[in-house]
Amino acid sequence: MQRYFVAPEHILSHNVVITGDDVRHIHKVMRMGPGDELICANGMEQAFLCRITEITAEKVEAAIIHECPQTQELPVRITIVQGMPKGDKLEYIVQKGTECGAKAFYPYEAERSIVKWQPGKIGKKLDRLRKIAKEAAEQSHRAMIPMVNEPVSIKTLIKMSAEYQHKIVAYEETAKAGKQGGLPEVFHSMDSGEECLVVIGPEGGLSPNEMDEFKRADFIPCGLGNRILRTETASLFVLSAASYHFELINEVK
Amino acid sequence: MQRYFVAPEHILSHNVVITGDDVRHIHKVMRMGPGDELICANGMEQAFLCRITEITAEKVEAAIIHECPQTQELPVRITIVQGMPKGDKLEYIVQKGTECGAKAFYPYEAERSIVKWQPGKIGKKLDRLRKIAKEAAEQSHRAMIPMVNEPVSIKTLIKMSAEYQHKIVAYEETAKAGKQGGLPEVFHSMDSGEECLVVIGPEGGLSPNEMDEFKRADFIPCGLGNRILRTETASLFVLSAASYHFELINEVK
Repeated sequence: MQRYFVAPEHILSHNVVITGDDVRHIHKVMRMGPGDELICANGMEQAFLCRITEITAEKVEAAIIHECPQTQELPVRITIVQGMPKGDKLEYIVQKGTECGAKAFYPYEAERSIVKWQPGKIGKKLDRLRKIAKEAAEQSHRAMIPMVNEPVSIKTLIKMSAEYQHKIVAYEETAKAGKQGGLPEVFHSMDSGEECLVVIGPEGGLSPNEMDEFKRADFIPCGLGNRILRTETASLFVLSAASYHFELINEVK
Repeated sequence: MQRYFVAPEHILSHNVVITGDDVRHIHKVMRMGPGDELICANGMEQAFLCRITEITAEKVEAAIIHECPQTQELPVRITIVQGMPKGDKLEYIVQKGTECGAKAFYPYEAERSIVKWQPGKIGKKLDRLRKIAKEAAEQSHRAMIPMVNEPVSIKTLIKMSAEYQHKIVAYEETAKAGKQGGLPEVFHSMDSGEECLVVIGPEGGLSPNEMDEFKRADFIPCGLGNRILRTETASLFVLSAASYHFELINEVK
């Protein structure tokens, strides 16, 4: 069943009005018409099975049949702080991280990040990343669209980290040294609905100075297995491990 | 430390001879010279710390300092059978799957695979995928290069599956239905060194007919979390979950 995110104010008690790019997608790409069914999600963890009643060039109107049960969200909320990587890797990280259940993303201006976003281009870059998140959320049947936030400095990051119950920093030296642990202990300590902030370094990793600052702010260094992962793979590892722990082993308290 | 895979016959008792493309990489890209250290792995789970003694245009000679302990391989052997996907997704799957510890890959000619490799082009395609696996294995400090095999039919696949102690098939209907399980039970039943075959459908998924055949051959259907993953993300999920289970929780018997 095709899913679309619709602004909450467009979801009324008995029907839904879809506008914007999705109209063309429903009409021209999916070739749907009156009588066809689709799912409209409000991006706030509610979704409704709907039947199309009318299609025009500007809007699709649909009647709500019933609310759908939502089981697509990870029981814990994981926010990915990604050291800004080269090229289009951030697009990939947002797409795959959305599929794997991330709650939000913060690009992080790490010491070893080579890429810097020019102030005049931040809006356009965020628009593109948010579009990718919306499409990936629809495709993977998410009940919400992860938020893609403006890039943050280490100062902002450490300040905002105080609001998270759990904070980890991916640390590849533990992989090289054959030492592991960290991640399962953090997951074991998490209750359903709690928030976890996950910091991942850029291509060159985090500097010793950054690691010290994160440790002082009570971030727990965690190894991600015995191999050295590329920066764009690390968030997928953490999210897959969380799904395995909380959804498959079903460890949630 | 830079790592290179060297054919076992080029690793002698006290020194190593590196030839081929790696000579240019060592000399021109890494700008290393006599006295510099590197790691030479034989692709058979042995690696050696070496010091360069001589560089020519054709070869690099290095003295073995000592053998390196190997802890980079997953304690269980996971082979990915990937329903042939569109575009260059298979390259991505081989690269990321190598990073995450896969033992081998089989492209699978699934019922709903749109792509078919022309017989005359199979060799070239495999060469390219094997080069990607070698580079990813070096980059992620693997002790072996995963094997990329020729495409297989369901008949061949089911025949060869008899040699694996564990067999699973990723099944998204369990995610849609909110039913999970499968994967942790399989992992719990695995002993160190055992082999597991993991079948993943192409973009359109596996057909009911294929699922029946796999079930008849004792493949266990496993859900991969509560979201619908794209075909290229599924193998990463399984490998990350295996690393979490066997390396981080350290559940190996």
